[in-house]
Amino acid sequence: MSRTPENLISETQTALERVRAGAPLVQSITNAVVTNFTANALLALGAAPAMCDIVGEAGPFARIAQGLLINLGTPVPEQRAAALEAVTAANEAGTPWVLDPVAIGALPVRTALALRLRELRPTIVRGNASEILALAEAGAGGRGVDATDGVESAREAAIALARRTGAVIAVSGPTDLITDGERTVLLSNGDALLTRITGGGCALGAVMAAFAAGAEDYLVSTVAAVSTYTIAAELAAERASRPGSFQVAFLDALDEITPEHILARAVFA
Amino acid sequence: MSRTPENLISETQTALERVRAGAPLVQSITNAVVTNFTANALLALGAAPAMCDIVGEAGPFARIAQGLLINLGTPVPEQRAAALEAVTAANEAGTPWVLDPVAIGALPVRTALALRLRELRPTIVRGNASEILALAEAGAGGRGVDATDGVESAREAAIALARRTGAVIAVSGPTDLITDGERTVLLSNGDALLTRITGGGCALGAVMAAFAAGAEDYLVSTVAAVSTYTIAAELAAERASRPGSFQVAFLDALDEITPEHILARAVFA
Amino acid sequence: MSRTPENLISETQTALERVRAGAPLVQSITNAVVTNFTANALLALGAAPAMCDIVGEAGPFARIAQGLLINLGTPVPEQRAAALEAVTAANEAGTPWVLDPVAIGALPVRTALALRLRELRPTIVRGNASEILALAEAGAGGRGVDATDGVESAREAAIALARRTGAVIAVSGPTDLITDGERTVLLSNGDALLTRITGGGCALGAVMAAFAAGAEDYLVSTVAAVSTYTIAAELAAERASRPGSFQVAFLDALDEITPEHILARAVFA
Repeated sequence: MSRTPENLISETQTALERVRAGAPLVQSITNAVVTNFTANALLALGAAPAMCDIVGEAGPFARIAQGLLINLGTPVPEQRAAALEAVTAANEAGTPWVLDPVAIGALPVRTALALRLRELRPTIVRGNASEILALAEAGAGGRGVDATDGVESAREAAIALARRTGAVIAVSGPTDLITDGERTVLLSNGDALLTRITGGGCALGAVMAAFAAGAEDYLVSTVAAVSTYTIAAELAAERASRPGSFQVAFLDALDEITPEHILARAVFA
Repeated sequence: MSRTPENLISETQTALERVRAGAPLVQSITNAVVTNFTANALLALGAAPAMCDIVGEAGPFARIAQGLLINLGTPVPEQRAAALEAVTAANEAGTPWVLDPVAIGALPVRTALALRLRELRPTIVRGNASEILALAEAGAGGRGVDATDGVESAREAAIALARRTGAVIAVSGPTDLITDGERTVLLSNGDALLTRITGGGCALGAVMAAFAAGAEDYLVSTVAAVSTYTIAAELAAERASRPGSFQVAFLDALDEITPEHILARAVFA
Repeated sequence: MSRTPENLISETQTALERVRAGAPLVQSITNAVVTNFTANALLALGAAPAMCDIVGEAGPFARIAQGLLINLGTPVPEQRAAALEAVTAANEAGTPWVLDPVAIGALPVRTALALRLRELRPTIVRGNASEILALAEAGAGGRGVDATDGVESAREAAIALARRTGAVIAVSGPTDLITDGERTVLLSNGDALLTRITGGGCALGAVMAAFAAGAEDYLVSTVAAVSTYTIAAELAAERASRPGSFQVAFLDALDEITPEHILARAVFA
């Protein structure tokens, strides 16, 4: 790829400023466990969250939203239908959307839905290595929302999935891998405490949707989202060493983080 | 109106003491994003929360509850039916109930339900200016849960809506406006951080239901709820300047707030 | 009973270390109000939470989970069917499961479901005195999730229920009573702040499922869960005196608590 780490830092800074200035309206169709945390993460960052996930409203809302998250963590029937309605409308309206195929592989209902959504041109797909491998049908899935495979194990599957779907694929782990099939970026920010609170990964999907709003290059916007999010986790981990207080400090850090923090801390490869 | 600000302060103090002494049982049929925060806000204040929102139970519970909230933030079909069941029972049993028509206007399902509930004699209606305008059919609604209109823009619509429905109408914003169609009170407490956490408005609807329990005058009880809630936000904002820690401090402040805080800080007009 | 308090302390310490080392996968089919807090409590403790509560997945997941919680706080139809599916699979696979019959007695839908689940051989039943009395059909139920009866009032009903069902029965209150019908243990740790946050009891049910994973003696594992949980509450209450900050401190304490804390603080009778 022709982009240098310096360019990515600069573009991440610009993207953060764009989110703050635009307060993009992000529709989240997400799981019941993390709705509150997801909305608070978006608010702290400066975006405008809306969880609109019922049939008859999910579609109309996806036309006015500036970004959309489809997270499959607790896909009750109403939400499954709403997700399809929203994606159809998002594609018609040009709203970028993120697919987070939580825990697919072993669980049949969400796996079938994820495979169907995969064919509906997601803008971005976010998952851990197990989930990306399962979505690429290159692996057997995991035991739930934990990663049981390393990011590197999903590199080839992620690149192939990006080429097949046209989506940017983001593989979450201690190192994050983001690829559009041609360009691949590795990021090494973050803190393990992010895995000790529920929704640490799920809210990142919503943040990716916020950064995708108005973006020209979704690889760059996804890199910017991951970089901002994981550097905020580092800021929080400097102030809190256990999960309860870390969650509070992390929301504060999403509010506090500036382009200067990005410049000082971003680690790209 | 004949009530003076001094009277309202005194009555707010009395109302807060009544909630603390009575621990009213408040049924909340509310959106999935804010159930946890709403229950914790009620508990912190001294009320007893119960989210009972399924068909076959919502009605029986509304007969024993001392206050009821109907919030339309994520109105899945089961919850829509449960809301109607609960309202019918509440009206038969004399349980006061609060309608919060979240984000109505542009979204068809909740708008239709809100217009139906409007005719079922809500005790109190709480919304931002956009929502109150939409419920009064004087506006075209908003982009979601944000206010896109100022409180003053909804004054006439609120008064008309109060006269038409018999409900107390509370319009939330930097200044809060509360009217029963004859008397109108403006309150100027609060902090902008309340808009940076999800559920900041939604939980207020539940607190209004708690203050309505056993009240003789719902205008006064609603003023007391708003005053207590927004002064608690001020206490919290003195201790926390970012949204994560503000949410924690706000729950603490709902527990801590006393009639003395009301006396020292309440700003009525 | 032949077990001494000293033995129980030692076994609680061993059980805590087993949870930390094994990170048991705990499936929680629980109410919408407390899903986030429950997942965070399990993560803080060192377990691996998964809320898998839809038809078609709840059963398959219960076969791979190491513990299962069925909490009846907001039993929508999909979740009722998923609960039965999960319990059937858990029984076939030998997965221990906890029944938390929230607010049964007055509310017909959950009461009918609880009575049906009672016959499906729960491993552990957790409730306050009112709920245990209602499940034993010895009482008329309560006004919601508050205990309106003391733990002692449910002693005979709990012992009879244990003998009838084969389950360990845990009655929550200022003193906790745990019985398998032959042996009965009283625990006197905890803090009243645990009743001022929502999910304080519900998350305990999930923690019981985590401690049941791989246990040889479910009375002991349940005692260990309650002891660990209530001592963590004591640690938190030393650092936070109001509910918002207590919730944060409690999650931190579940992460921090060690066998040494158990030894120093456990109060059995």
